[in-house]
Amino acid sequence: MMIRPLLAALTAAAVSLPAAAQFQKPEDAVKYRQSAMTVMANHFGRVGAMVQGRVPFDAATANANAEVVAMMSKLPFIAYVEGTPGTAKGGASPAIWTKRAEFDAAASKMQEEVAKLLAAAKTNNLDNIKGAFGGVGQACKGCHDNFRNQ
Amino acid sequence: MMIRPLLAALTAAAVSLPAAAQFQKPEDAVKYRQSAMTVMANHFGRVGAMVQGRVPFDAATANANAEVVAMMSKLPFIAYVEGTPGTAKGGASPAIWTKRAEFDAAASKMQEEVAKLLAAAKTNNLDNIKGAFGGVGQACKGCHDNFRNQ
Repeated sequence: MMIRPLLAALTAAAVSLPAAAQFQKPEDAVKYRQSAMTVMANHFGRVGAMVQGRVPFDAATANANAEVVAMMSKLPFIAYVEGTPGTAKGGASPAIWTKRAEFDAAASKMQEEVAKLLAAAKTNNLDNIKGAFGGVGQACKGCHDNFRNQ
Repeated sequence: MMIRPLLAALTAAAVSLPAAAQFQKPEDAVKYRQSAMTVMANHFGRVGAMVQGRVPFDAATANANAEVVAMMSKLPFIAYVEGTPGTAKGGASPAIWTKRAEFDAAASKMQEEVAKLLAAAKTNNLDNIKGAFGGVGQACKGCHDNFRNQ
């Protein structure tokens, strides 16, 4: 799994600069994090379509999609720059910044569950993927329930 | 480079279904392709900041960002679903669908240049990265000039 050290390097690199310095404008940070989430959700959904039997299981496709989810899972969090909560439904809740440690823990939990999903995909076994899929979904929901505007 | 066969599988998987079947609604396709482009541009920009000396060169960071660019470079094109041109400046030009072969060739050219950038990043040598960086920029611009609403 060559992607693991790369993602670790990416995360380390990302946190070596102040988050605000990574984006020229606050709206750039918002657009970036929403984009990473959109790509992540799409590819997680493609795994889900196989888990739920809506499309035939194909191990290579499941792997490729899980790889995208895994890479995306690392990206959005540098972009929750101080002072960039959303106001619309589905936007970033102000709670992210008042409960940052909880938010960061929820992000880490999601990343761990995604890593399990990727490991399951690498076994090329649909039952293993089914076993890991729910954990990711719960981690998504857990964070969205608490940190996304309802 | 484990990512290469994975991306190949992803691309193969993506083209094995009609593009329209990959997205529930036309606007989902638009949002997805714009999101992948946003993530790609952000990480290409982070490589660019090093190429242009705005941030110190760090080989691991350059690698990690080039990996994201490489993965993203494969994603948007399945989402140029028939009948989803944009109307605003910067949106997808109707020319994409009237000159699809040219568009596809431009996309492939960009992916090739990005692969060179990733290979350059893996040498951990800034001069090599500088050498490959411009080719990617030209490929981006070439396609945008022809296939993005001006």
